[in-house]
Amino acid sequence: MKTVSSWRSHHGTQGVYRHASEATGTEMVFSVFVPDHEPGARLPVVWYLSGLTCTHANVTEKGEYRAACAELGLIFVAPDTSPRGEGVADDPAYDMGQGAGFYVDATEAPYAPHFRMRSYIEDELPTLIAAEVPADMGRQAITGHSMGGHGALTIALRNPERFRSVSAFAPIVAPAQVPWGEKALTGYLGPDRTKWRDYDAVALIEDGARVPEILVDQGEADAFLSEQLRPGLLRGACEAAGIDLMLRMQPGYDHSYYFISTFMADHLRWHAERLRG
Amino acid sequence: MKTVSSWRSHHGTQGVYRHASEATGTEMVFSVFVPDHEPGARLPVVWYLSGLTCTHANVTEKGEYRAACAELGLIFVAPDTSPRGEGVADDPAYDMGQGAGFYVDATEAPYAPHFRMRSYIEDELPTLIAAEVPADMGRQAITGHSMGGHGALTIALRNPERFRSVSAFAPIVAPAQVPWGEKALTGYLGPDRTKWRDYDAVALIEDGARVPEILVDQGEADAFLSEQLRPGLLRGACEAAGIDLMLRMQPGYDHSYYFISTFMADHLRWHAERLRG
Repeated sequence: MKTVSSWRSHHGTQGVYRHASEATGTEMVFSVFVPDHEPGARLPVVWYLSGLTCTHANVTEKGEYRAACAELGLIFVAPDTSPRGEGVADDPAYDMGQGAGFYVDATEAPYAPHFRMRSYIEDELPTLIAAEVPADMGRQAITGHSMGGHGALTIALRNPERFRSVSAFAPIVAPAQVPWGEKALTGYLGPDRTKWRDYDAVALIEDGARVPEILVDQGEADAFLSEQLRPGLLRGACEAAGIDLMLRMQPGYDHSYYFISTFMADHLRWHAERLRG
Repeated sequence: MKTVSSWRSHHGTQGVYRHASEATGTEMVFSVFVPDHEPGARLPVVWYLSGLTCTHANVTEKGEYRAACAELGLIFVAPDTSPRGEGVADDPAYDMGQGAGFYVDATEAPYAPHFRMRSYIEDELPTLIAAEVPADMGRQAITGHSMGGHGALTIALRNPERFRSVSAFAPIVAPAQVPWGEKALTGYLGPDRTKWRDYDAVALIEDGARVPEILVDQGEADAFLSEQLRPGLLRGACEAAGIDLMLRMQPGYDHSYYFISTFMADHLRWHAERLRG
Protein backbone atom coordinates (compact mmCIF):
# COMPACT_ATOMS: atom_id res chain seq x y z
CA MET A 1 0.00 0.00 0.00
CA LYS A 2 1.49 3.31 -1.15
CA THR A 3 0.69 6.69 0.32
CA VAL A 4 -0.91 9.06 -2.21
CA SER A 5 -1.28 11.86 0.33
CA SER A 6 -1.42 12.34 4.08
CA TRP A 7 -2.67 15.18 6.23
CA ARG A 8 -2.76 15.89 9.90
CA SER A 9 -6.40 16.59 10.72
CA HIS A 10 -8.58 16.55 13.82
CA HIS A 11 -5.75 15.20 15.99
CA GLY A 12 -5.15 12.21 13.75
CA THR A 13 -3.88 11.24 10.33
CA GLN A 14 -6.02 11.35 7.20
CA GLY A 15 -4.32 9.31 4.51
CA VAL A 16 -5.13 8.37 0.93
CA TYR A 17 -3.53 5.14 -0.29
CA ARG A 18 -3.34 3.00 -3.42
CA HIS A 19 -2.49 -0.61 -4.00
CA ALA A 20 -2.57 -3.21 -6.76
CA SER A 21 -5.76 -5.19 -6.14
CA GLU A 22 -5.86 -8.88 -6.99
CA ALA A 23 -9.64 -8.91 -6.73
CA THR A 24 -10.23 -6.21 -9.34
CA GLY A 25 -6.98 -6.52 -11.30
CA THR A 26 -6.55 -2.74 -11.06
CA GLU A 27 -4.95 -0.14 -8.85
CA MET A 28 -7.44 0.76 -6.14
CA VAL A 29 -7.45 3.95 -4.05
CA PHE A 30 -8.98 4.35 -0.59
CA SER A 31 -8.75 6.69 2.39
CA VAL A 32 -8.16 5.91 6.07
CA PHE A 33 -8.40 8.20 9.11
CA VAL A 34 -6.48 7.05 12.18
CA PRO A 35 -6.91 9.09 15.38
CA ASP A 36 -3.90 9.64 17.60
CA HIS A 37 -3.59 6.69 19.98
CA GLU A 38 -1.28 5.03 22.47
CA PRO A 39 1.67 3.17 20.90
CA GLY A 40 0.67 -0.42 20.22
CA ALA A 41 -3.06 0.22 20.64
CA ARG A 42 -5.46 -1.17 18.04
CA LEU A 43 -8.66 0.77 17.38
CA PRO A 44 -12.08 -0.35 16.16
CA VAL A 45 -12.87 0.25 12.48
CA VAL A 46 -15.86 1.83 10.75
CA TRP A 47 -16.19 1.05 7.03
CA TYR A 48 -17.97 3.65 4.91
CA LEU A 49 -19.15 2.64 1.43
CA SER A 50 -19.93 5.48 -0.97
CA GLY A 51 -22.71 6.02 -3.49
CA LEU A 52 -23.01 6.31 -7.26
CA THR A 53 -20.37 8.47 -9.00
CA CYS A 54 -18.30 8.82 -5.80
CA THR A 55 -14.71 7.93 -5.02
CA HIS A 56 -13.11 7.89 -1.56
CA ALA A 57 -12.76 11.66 -1.92
CA ASN A 58 -16.38 12.73 -1.45
CA VAL A 59 -16.79 11.52 2.11
CA THR A 60 -13.15 12.29 2.91
CA GLU A 61 -13.68 15.95 2.05
CA LYS A 62 -17.35 16.46 2.94
CA GLY A 63 -18.30 13.72 5.40
CA GLU A 64 -17.39 15.55 8.64
CA TYR A 65 -16.45 12.29 10.37
CA ARG A 66 -12.99 13.12 11.71
CA ALA A 67 -13.97 15.10 14.82
CA ALA A 68 -16.23 12.30 16.04
CA CYS A 69 -13.76 9.55 15.09
CA ALA A 70 -11.01 11.33 17.02
CA GLU A 71 -13.26 11.77 20.04
CA LEU A 72 -14.47 8.17 19.95
CA GLY A 73 -11.21 6.52 18.92
CA LEU A 74 -12.48 5.06 15.63
CA ILE A 75 -10.57 4.29 12.45
CA PHE A 76 -12.59 5.27 9.34
CA VAL A 77 -12.00 3.47 6.02
CA ALA A 78 -13.51 4.78 2.76
CA PRO A 79 -12.96 2.60 -0.35
CA ASP A 80 -13.70 3.52 -3.95
CA THR A 81 -17.00 2.45 -5.56
CA SER A 82 -15.60 0.44 -8.47
CA PRO A 83 -12.47 -0.46 -10.38
CA ARG A 84 -11.34 2.31 -12.71
CA GLY A 85 -8.95 2.87 -15.58
CA GLU A 86 -8.55 2.57 -19.31
CA GLY A 87 -8.78 -1.20 -19.55
CA VAL A 88 -11.88 -1.35 -17.34
CA ALA A 89 -15.38 -1.62 -18.83
CA ASP A 90 -17.56 1.45 -18.50
CA ASP A 91 -20.96 2.77 -19.47
CA PRO A 92 -21.79 6.35 -20.41
CA ALA A 93 -24.55 6.41 -17.76
CA TYR A 94 -23.65 7.51 -14.23
CA ASP A 95 -25.38 4.48 -12.71
CA MET A 96 -23.46 1.66 -14.44
CA GLY A 97 -19.79 0.77 -14.81
CA GLN A 98 -17.02 2.89 -13.30
CA GLY A 99 -18.23 4.68 -10.15
CA ALA A 100 -21.18 2.27 -9.91
CA GLY A 101 -19.82 -1.10 -8.83
CA PHE A 102 -22.82 -1.95 -6.60
CA TYR A 103 -20.55 -4.08 -4.37
CA VAL A 104 -21.11 -7.23 -6.45
CA ASP A 105 -18.81 -9.81 -8.04
CA ALA A 106 -19.91 -9.46 -11.67
CA THR A 107 -20.40 -12.59 -13.77
CA GLU A 108 -21.42 -10.98 -17.06
CA ALA A 109 -19.42 -9.47 -19.93
CA PRO A 110 -17.94 -6.92 -20.17
CA TYR A 111 -17.83 -6.43 -16.38
CA ALA A 112 -16.76 -9.85 -15.03
CA PRO A 113 -12.97 -9.36 -15.34
CA HIS A 114 -12.67 -6.33 -13.01
CA PHE A 115 -15.97 -5.63 -11.23
CA ARG A 116 -15.35 -7.75 -8.14
CA MET A 117 -16.17 -5.22 -5.42
CA ARG A 118 -17.73 -7.87 -3.15
CA SER A 119 -14.47 -9.81 -2.98
CA TYR A 120 -12.55 -6.58 -2.67
CA ILE A 121 -14.54 -5.22 0.30
CA GLU A 122 -15.25 -8.56 1.97
CA ASP A 123 -11.83 -10.19 1.64
CA GLU A 124 -8.95 -8.30 0.10
CA LEU A 125 -9.17 -4.83 1.62
CA PRO A 126 -9.80 -6.07 5.20
CA THR A 127 -6.66 -8.21 4.94
CA LEU A 128 -4.68 -5.18 3.82
CA ILE A 129 -6.17 -2.97 6.56
CA ALA A 130 -5.41 -5.59 9.22
CA ALA A 131 -1.79 -5.70 8.08
CA GLU A 132 -1.11 -2.00 7.51
CA VAL A 133 -3.32 -0.05 9.94
CA PRO A 134 -3.53 -0.26 13.77
CA ALA A 135 -7.03 -1.73 13.47
CA ASP A 136 -8.71 -4.15 15.85
CA MET A 137 -10.41 -6.40 13.29
CA GLY A 138 -12.44 -7.97 16.09
CA ARG A 139 -14.31 -4.69 16.36
CA GLN A 140 -15.71 -3.65 12.96
CA ALA A 141 -18.80 -1.66 11.97
CA ILE A 142 -20.09 -0.73 8.52
CA THR A 143 -22.15 2.09 7.05
CA GLY A 144 -22.65 3.73 3.68
CA HIS A 145 -24.69 6.06 1.52
CA SER A 146 -27.24 5.19 -1.16
CA MET A 147 -25.56 2.50 -3.32
CA GLY A 148 -23.03 2.30 -0.48
CA GLY A 149 -25.88 1.89 2.00
CA HIS A 150 -26.95 -1.09 -0.10
CA GLY A 151 -23.35 -2.32 0.11
CA ALA A 152 -23.21 -1.88 3.88
CA LEU A 153 -26.54 -3.64 4.50
CA THR A 154 -25.85 -6.59 2.21
CA ILE A 155 -22.26 -7.09 3.37
CA ALA A 156 -23.33 -6.96 7.03
CA LEU A 157 -26.23 -9.36 6.44
CA ARG A 158 -23.92 -11.84 4.69
CA ASN A 159 -21.19 -11.45 7.35
CA PRO A 160 -22.92 -10.94 10.71
CA GLU A 161 -19.94 -12.42 12.56
CA ARG A 162 -17.61 -9.77 11.15
CA PHE A 163 -19.59 -6.62 12.01
CA ARG A 164 -20.85 -5.63 15.42
CA SER A 165 -23.13 -2.97 13.92
CA VAL A 166 -24.51 -1.69 10.62
CA SER A 167 -26.13 1.60 9.65
CA ALA A 168 -26.88 3.47 6.44
CA PHE A 169 -27.68 6.90 5.03
CA ALA A 170 -30.48 6.85 2.44
CA PRO A 171 -29.70 3.30 1.33
CA ILE A 172 -30.97 1.39 -1.68
CA VAL A 173 -32.65 -1.33 0.37
CA ALA A 174 -34.11 -3.54 -2.37
CA PRO A 175 -32.18 -3.16 -5.64
CA ALA A 176 -34.18 -5.96 -7.29
CA GLN A 177 -37.31 -3.83 -6.91
CA VAL A 178 -36.02 -0.41 -8.12
CA PRO A 179 -34.70 0.93 -11.47
CA TRP A 180 -31.08 1.59 -10.38
CA GLY A 181 -30.75 -1.93 -9.03
CA GLU A 182 -32.61 -3.72 -11.83
CA LYS A 183 -30.30 -2.11 -14.38
CA ALA A 184 -27.10 -2.77 -12.43
CA LEU A 185 -27.88 -6.32 -11.33
CA THR A 186 -28.97 -7.28 -14.86
CA GLY A 187 -25.76 -5.83 -16.25
CA TYR A 188 -23.43 -7.35 -13.66
CA LEU A 189 -25.21 -10.67 -12.86
CA GLY A 190 -27.48 -11.38 -15.82
CA PRO A 191 -31.27 -11.71 -16.02
CA ASP A 192 -31.69 -14.64 -13.57
CA ARG A 193 -33.16 -12.87 -10.55
CA THR A 194 -32.43 -15.74 -8.18
CA LYS A 195 -28.76 -14.73 -8.49
CA TRP A 196 -29.62 -11.20 -7.35
CA ARG A 197 -30.91 -12.19 -3.92
CA ASP A 198 -27.45 -12.33 -2.39
CA TYR A 199 -27.09 -8.63 -3.30
CA ASP A 200 -30.44 -7.33 -2.04
CA ALA A 201 -30.88 -6.51 1.65
CA VAL A 202 -34.63 -7.15 1.68
CA ALA A 203 -34.22 -10.45 -0.16
CA LEU A 204 -31.37 -11.52 2.15
CA ILE A 205 -33.60 -10.90 5.18
CA GLU A 206 -36.49 -12.76 3.52
CA ASP A 207 -34.08 -15.64 2.92
CA GLY A 208 -33.05 -15.76 6.58
CA ALA A 209 -30.04 -13.45 6.97
CA ARG A 210 -30.07 -11.65 10.31
CA VAL A 211 -28.41 -8.80 12.16
CA PRO A 212 -29.76 -7.71 15.54
CA GLU A 213 -30.40 -4.07 14.64
CA ILE A 214 -30.01 -1.48 11.88
CA LEU A 215 -29.86 2.34 12.06
CA VAL A 216 -31.02 4.22 8.95
CA ASP A 217 -31.36 7.97 8.37
CA GLN A 218 -33.41 9.00 5.35
CA GLY A 219 -34.15 12.53 4.16
CA GLU A 220 -37.80 13.20 3.38
CA ALA A 221 -36.82 15.67 0.62
CA ASP A 222 -34.57 13.09 -1.06
CA ALA A 223 -35.41 13.12 -4.78
CA PHE A 224 -34.73 9.36 -4.98
CA LEU A 225 -36.84 8.37 -1.98
CA SER A 226 -39.98 6.92 -3.54
CA GLU A 227 -38.56 5.42 -6.74
CA GLN A 228 -35.06 4.15 -5.86
CA LEU A 229 -34.68 3.94 -2.08
CA ARG A 230 -38.07 2.82 -0.70
CA PRO A 231 -37.15 2.37 2.97
CA GLY A 232 -40.63 0.99 3.63
CA LEU A 233 -39.52 -2.25 1.98
CA LEU A 234 -36.75 -2.59 4.57
CA ARG A 235 -39.16 -1.74 7.36
CA GLY A 236 -41.50 -4.50 6.23
CA ALA A 237 -38.74 -7.07 5.96
CA CYS A 238 -37.28 -6.15 9.36
CA GLU A 239 -40.69 -6.30 11.06
CA ALA A 240 -41.34 -9.75 9.61
CA ALA A 241 -37.85 -10.93 10.66
CA GLY A 242 -37.74 -9.37 14.12
CA ILE A 243 -34.81 -7.09 13.25
CA ASP A 244 -34.76 -3.89 15.29
CA LEU A 245 -34.76 -1.19 12.58
CA MET A 246 -34.35 2.42 13.73
CA LEU A 247 -35.54 4.22 10.58
CA ARG A 248 -35.34 7.97 11.17
CA MET A 249 -37.14 10.05 8.53
CA GLN A 250 -35.52 13.52 8.47
CA PRO A 251 -37.80 16.33 7.24
CA GLY A 252 -36.28 18.67 4.68
CA TYR A 253 -33.06 16.74 4.09
CA ASP A 254 -32.04 15.62 0.58
CA HIS A 255 -29.60 13.02 -0.78
CA SER A 256 -26.41 15.13 -0.55
CA TYR A 257 -23.44 15.31 1.79
CA TYR A 258 -25.25 18.23 3.47
CA PHE A 259 -27.57 15.49 4.75
CA ILE A 260 -24.92 12.82 5.41
CA SER A 261 -22.61 15.16 7.33
CA THR A 262 -25.50 16.25 9.56
CA PHE A 263 -26.07 12.75 10.93
CA MET A 264 -22.54 11.32 10.59
CA ALA A 265 -21.58 11.96 14.22
CA ASP A 266 -24.83 10.33 15.40
CA HIS A 267 -24.01 7.19 13.45
CA LEU A 268 -20.44 7.09 14.70
CA ARG A 269 -21.60 7.42 18.31
CA TRP A 270 -24.12 4.63 17.76
CA HIS A 271 -21.44 2.38 16.31
CA ALA A 272 -18.94 3.31 19.04
CA GLU A 273 -21.37 2.16 21.73
CA ARG A 274 -21.54 -1.24 20.02
CA LEU A 275 -17.79 -1.46 19.42
CA ARG A 276 -16.77 -0.95 23.06
CA GLY A 277 -14.93 -3.63 24.95
CA MET B 1 -30.46 38.36 -3.99
CA LYS B 2 -31.39 35.18 -5.87
CA THR B 3 -31.10 31.68 -4.52
CA VAL B 4 -28.65 29.53 -6.48
CA SER B 5 -29.19 26.52 -4.25
CA SER B 6 -30.41 25.70 -0.76
CA TRP B 7 -29.99 22.65 1.43
CA ARG B 8 -31.21 21.62 4.82
CA SER B 9 -28.11 20.80 6.82
CA HIS B 10 -27.19 20.52 10.49
CA HIS B 11 -30.63 21.73 11.61
CA GLY B 12 -30.45 24.91 9.58
CA THR B 13 -30.41 26.18 6.01
CA GLN B 14 -27.26 26.32 3.90
CA GLY B 15 -27.92 28.63 0.96
CA VAL B 16 -25.87 29.86 -1.98
CA TYR B 17 -26.99 33.21 -3.41
CA ARG B 18 -26.07 35.61 -6.19
CA HIS B 19 -26.69 39.28 -6.71
CA ALA B 20 -25.65 42.10 -9.01
CA SER B 21 -22.94 43.97 -7.12
CA GLU B 22 -22.60 47.73 -7.55
CA ALA B 23 -19.18 47.65 -5.93
CA THR B 24 -17.65 45.19 -8.38
CA GLY B 25 -19.96 45.72 -11.34
CA THR B 26 -20.39 41.95 -11.61
CA GLU B 27 -22.63 39.20 -10.37
CA MET B 28 -21.27 38.02 -7.03
CA VAL B 29 -21.99 34.65 -5.38
CA PHE B 30 -21.80 33.94 -1.64
CA SER B 31 -23.06 31.35 0.83
CA VAL B 32 -24.96 31.81 4.10
CA PHE B 33 -25.79 29.25 6.79
CA VAL B 34 -28.71 30.16 9.05
CA PRO B 35 -29.43 27.84 11.98
CA ASP B 36 -33.03 27.15 12.92
CA HIS B 37 -34.23 29.90 15.28
CA GLU B 38 -37.30 31.35 16.90
CA PRO B 39 -39.52 33.39 14.53
CA GLY B 40 -38.41 37.01 14.57
CA ALA B 41 -35.08 36.27 16.25
CA ARG B 42 -31.92 37.84 14.85
CA LEU B 43 -28.67 35.92 15.22
CA PRO B 44 -25.04 37.08 15.43
CA VAL B 45 -22.99 36.79 12.25
CA VAL B 46 -19.54 35.32 11.60
CA TRP B 47 -17.90 36.43 8.34
CA TYR B 48 -15.43 33.99 6.77
CA LEU B 49 -13.07 35.28 4.06
CA SER B 50 -11.44 32.66 1.86
CA GLY B 51 -7.93 32.30 0.50
CA LEU B 52 -6.27 32.34 -2.92
CA THR B 53 -8.08 30.39 -5.68
CA CYS B 54 -11.15 29.79 -3.50
CA THR B 55 -14.80 30.66 -4.00
CA HIS B 56 -17.54 30.44 -1.36
CA ALA B 57 -17.67 26.70 -2.15
CA ASN B 58 -14.43 25.54 -0.50
CA VAL B 59 -15.38 26.43 3.06
CA THR B 60 -19.04 25.66 2.42
CA GLU B 61 -18.19 22.07 1.49
CA LYS B 62 -15.08 21.43 3.61
CA GLY B 63 -15.12 23.92 6.48
CA GLU B 64 -17.13 21.83 8.98
CA TYR B 65 -18.68 24.93 10.53
CA ARG B 66 -22.37 24.06 10.44
CA ALA B 67 -22.55 21.79 13.50
CA ALA B 68 -20.93 24.43 15.71
CA CYS B 69 -22.94 27.30 14.18
CA ALA B 70 -26.19 25.40 14.80
CA GLU B 71 -25.17 24.65 18.39
CA LEU B 72 -24.07 28.23 19.06
CA GLY B 73 -26.77 30.03 17.07
CA LEU B 74 -24.40 31.72 14.62
CA ILE B 75 -25.04 32.82 11.03
CA PHE B 76 -22.02 32.07 8.80
CA VAL B 77 -21.41 34.18 5.66
CA ALA B 78 -18.79 33.13 3.06
CA PRO B 79 -18.21 35.57 0.18
CA ASP B 80 -16.20 34.98 -2.98
CA THR B 81 -12.56 36.12 -3.17
CA SER B 82 -12.83 38.42 -6.22
CA PRO B 83 -15.08 39.54 -9.04
CA ARG B 84 -15.23 37.00 -11.85
CA GLY B 85 -16.43 36.73 -15.43
CA GLU B 86 -15.47 37.34 -19.02
CA GLY B 87 -15.22 41.12 -18.82
CA VAL B 88 -13.14 41.02 -15.63
CA ALA B 89 -9.34 41.38 -15.73
CA ASP B 90 -7.38 38.27 -14.90
CA ASP B 91 -3.85 36.96 -14.68
CA PRO B 92 -2.67 33.46 -15.57
CA ALA B 93 -1.06 33.12 -12.13
CA TYR B 94 -3.15 31.74 -9.26
CA ASP B 95 -2.13 34.59 -6.96
CA MET B 96 -3.34 37.58 -9.01
CA GLY B 97 -6.64 38.56 -10.61
CA GLN B 98 -9.73 36.35 -10.39
CA GLY B 99 -9.69 34.30 -7.20
CA ALA B 100 -7.08 36.61 -5.68
CA GLY B 101 -8.81 39.92 -4.89
CA PHE B 102 -6.82 40.50 -1.66
CA TYR B 103 -9.77 42.46 -0.22
CA VAL B 104 -8.57 45.77 -1.67
CA ASP B 105 -10.16 48.52 -3.75
CA ALA B 106 -7.82 48.48 -6.74
CA THR B 107 -6.66 51.76 -8.23
CA GLU B 108 -4.49 50.42 -11.06
CA ALA B 109 -5.29 49.23 -14.58
CA PRO B 110 -6.54 46.72 -15.56
CA TYR B 111 -8.01 45.91 -12.13
CA ALA B 112 -9.55 49.20 -10.98
CA PRO B 113 -12.96 48.81 -12.66
CA HIS B 114 -14.04 45.60 -10.90
CA PHE B 115 -11.59 44.69 -8.12
CA ARG B 116 -13.32 46.54 -5.28
CA MET B 117 -13.49 43.78 -2.68
CA ARG B 118 -12.91 46.18 0.22
CA SER B 119 -16.05 48.15 -0.62
CA TYR B 120 -17.89 44.94 -1.32
CA ILE B 121 -17.09 43.29 2.03
CA GLU B 122 -17.09 46.46 4.15
CA ASP B 123 -20.19 48.17 2.74
CA GLU B 124 -22.28 46.47 0.11
CA LEU B 125 -22.56 42.87 1.29
CA PRO B 126 -23.29 43.79 4.94
CA THR B 127 -26.16 45.99 3.76
CA LEU B 128 -27.56 43.11 1.73
CA ILE B 129 -27.13 40.64 4.61
CA ALA B 130 -28.84 43.03 7.04
CA ALA B 131 -31.81 43.30 4.68
CA GLU B 132 -32.18 39.68 3.58
CA VAL B 133 -30.96 37.49 6.46
CA PRO B 134 -32.15 37.34 10.10
CA ALA B 135 -28.82 38.78 11.22
CA ASP B 136 -28.15 40.94 14.27
CA MET B 137 -25.68 43.38 12.70
CA GLY B 138 -24.83 44.67 16.17
CA ARG B 139 -23.11 41.35 16.80
CA GLN B 140 -20.56 40.58 14.08
CA ALA B 141 -17.30 38.65 14.09
CA ILE B 142 -14.84 37.99 11.28
CA THR B 143 -12.34 35.28 10.42
CA GLY B 144 -10.63 33.94 7.33
CA HIS B 145 -7.89 31.78 5.87
CA SER B 146 -4.55 32.82 4.37
CA MET B 147 -5.39 35.72 1.99
CA GLY B 148 -8.78 35.74 3.73
CA GLY B 149 -7.04 35.87 7.10
CA HIS B 150 -5.32 39.00 5.80
CA GLY B 151 -8.76 40.27 4.79
CA ALA B 152 -10.26 39.50 8.20
CA LEU B 153 -7.41 41.14 10.14
CA THR B 154 -7.28 44.31 8.02
CA ILE B 155 -11.05 44.76 7.85
CA ALA B 156 -11.37 44.28 11.62
CA LEU B 157 -8.49 46.68 12.32
CA ARG B 158 -10.05 49.35 10.10
CA ASN B 159 -13.55 48.76 11.54
CA PRO B 160 -13.15 47.92 15.23
CA GLU B 161 -16.63 49.30 15.99
CA ARG B 162 -18.25 46.80 13.62
CA PHE B 163 -16.66 43.56 14.85
CA ARG B 164 -16.70 42.25 18.39
CA SER B 165 -13.99 39.71 17.58
CA VAL B 166 -11.49 38.69 14.92
CA SER B 167 -9.59 35.48 14.31
CA ALA B 168 -7.70 33.88 11.44
CA PHE B 169 -6.37 30.58 10.12
CA ALA B 170 -2.81 30.80 8.72
CA PRO B 171 -3.20 34.46 7.73
CA ILE B 172 -0.96 36.60 5.57
CA VAL B 173 -0.18 39.10 8.33
CA ALA B 174 2.13 41.53 6.50
CA PRO B 175 1.52 41.47 2.73
CA ALA B 176 3.93 44.35 2.17
CA GLN B 177 6.75 42.15 3.47
CA VAL B 178 6.05 38.89 1.58
CA PRO B 179 6.05 37.87 -2.11
CA TRP B 180 2.30 37.17 -2.47
CA GLY B 181 1.44 40.56 -1.04
CA GLU B 182 4.14 42.56 -2.81
CA LYS B 183 2.95 41.21 -6.15
CA ALA B 184 -0.74 41.75 -5.45
CA LEU B 185 -0.46 45.19 -3.83
CA THR B 186 1.81 46.42 -6.62
CA GLY B 187 -0.65 45.16 -9.20
CA TYR B 188 -3.77 46.49 -7.50
CA LEU B 189 -2.47 49.68 -5.82
CA GLY B 190 0.70 50.62 -7.69
CA PRO B 191 4.29 50.90 -6.48
CA ASP B 192 3.76 53.59 -3.81
CA ARG B 193 4.06 51.54 -0.63
CA THR B 194 2.47 54.21 1.55
CA LYS B 195 -0.83 53.28 -0.13
CA TRP B 196 -0.37 49.66 0.93
CA ARG B 197 -0.42 50.33 4.66
CA ASP B 198 -4.21 50.38 4.84
CA TYR B 199 -4.14 46.78 3.55
CA ASP B 200 -1.47 45.33 5.81
CA ALA B 201 -2.37 44.18 9.31
CA VAL B 202 1.09 44.74 10.77
CA ALA B 203 1.32 48.22 9.20
CA LEU B 204 -2.18 49.13 10.41
CA ILE B 205 -1.20 48.19 13.97
CA GLU B 206 2.06 50.13 13.65
CA ASP B 207 -0.02 53.11 12.46
CA GLY B 208 -2.31 52.93 15.50
CA ALA B 209 -5.20 50.64 14.56
CA ARG B 210 -6.36 48.56 17.52
CA VAL B 211 -8.53 45.58 18.39
CA PRO B 212 -8.48 44.17 21.91
CA GLU B 213 -7.50 40.62 20.98
CA ILE B 214 -6.83 38.28 18.05
CA LEU B 215 -6.96 34.47 17.82
CA VAL B 216 -4.72 32.84 15.18
CA ASP B 217 -4.13 29.17 14.45
CA GLN B 218 -1.12 28.36 12.31
CA GLY B 219 0.07 24.94 11.17
CA GLU B 220 3.75 24.28 11.70
CA ALA B 221 3.88 22.08 8.56
CA ASP B 222 2.35 24.84 6.42
CA ALA B 223 4.48 25.12 3.27
CA PHE B 224 3.85 28.90 3.17
CA LEU B 225 4.74 29.57 6.81
CA SER B 226 8.19 31.10 6.62
CA GLU B 227 8.01 32.90 3.27
CA GLN B 228 4.41 34.14 2.92
CA LEU B 229 2.69 34.04 6.32
CA ARG B 230 5.33 34.95 8.92
CA PRO B 231 3.14 35.11 12.04
CA GLY B 232 6.10 36.38 14.03
CA LEU B 233 5.62 39.76 12.38
CA LEU B 234 2.10 39.91 13.80
CA ARG B 235 3.36 38.79 17.20
CA GLY B 236 5.88 41.59 17.23
CA ALA B 237 3.37 44.23 16.22
CA CYS B 238 0.80 43.04 18.76
CA GLU B 239 3.35 42.97 21.58
CA ALA B 240 4.42 46.53 20.79
CA ALA B 241 0.79 47.68 20.59
CA GLY B 242 -0.56 45.82 23.62
CA ILE B 243 -2.93 43.69 21.56
CA ASP B 244 -3.65 40.30 23.15
CA LEU B 245 -2.64 37.86 20.40
CA MET B 246 -3.37 34.18 20.98
CA LEU B 247 -1.10 32.63 18.36
CA ARG B 248 -1.44 28.86 18.48
CA MET B 249 1.23 26.97 16.51
CA GLN B 250 -0.21 23.57 15.57
CA PRO B 251 2.41 20.83 15.01
CA GLY B 252 1.96 18.75 11.86
CA TYR B 253 -0.86 20.79 10.33
CA ASP B 254 -0.55 22.21 6.81
CA HIS B 255 -2.38 24.98 4.89
CA SER B 256 -5.39 22.91 3.77
CA TYR B 257 -9.00 22.57 4.85
CA TYR B 258 -7.89 19.48 6.80
CA PHE B 259 -6.23 22.06 9.07
CA ILE B 260 -8.97 24.69 8.95
CA SER B 261 -11.79 22.24 9.69
CA THR B 262 -9.89 20.92 12.71
CA PHE B 263 -9.92 24.27 14.50
CA MET B 264 -13.09 25.78 13.01
CA ALA B 265 -15.29 24.85 15.98
CA ASP B 266 -12.72 26.31 18.40
CA HIS B 267 -12.83 29.62 16.56
CA LEU B 268 -16.62 29.67 16.43
CA ARG B 269 -16.83 29.00 20.18
CA TRP B 270 -14.33 31.77 20.84
CA HIS B 271 -16.34 34.20 18.72
CA ALA B 272 -19.64 33.08 20.25
CA GLU B 273 -18.38 33.94 23.75
CA ARG B 274 -17.65 37.47 22.53
CA LEU B 275 -20.93 37.80 20.62
CA ARG B 276 -23.18 36.99 23.58
CA GLY B 277 -25.64 39.54 24.90
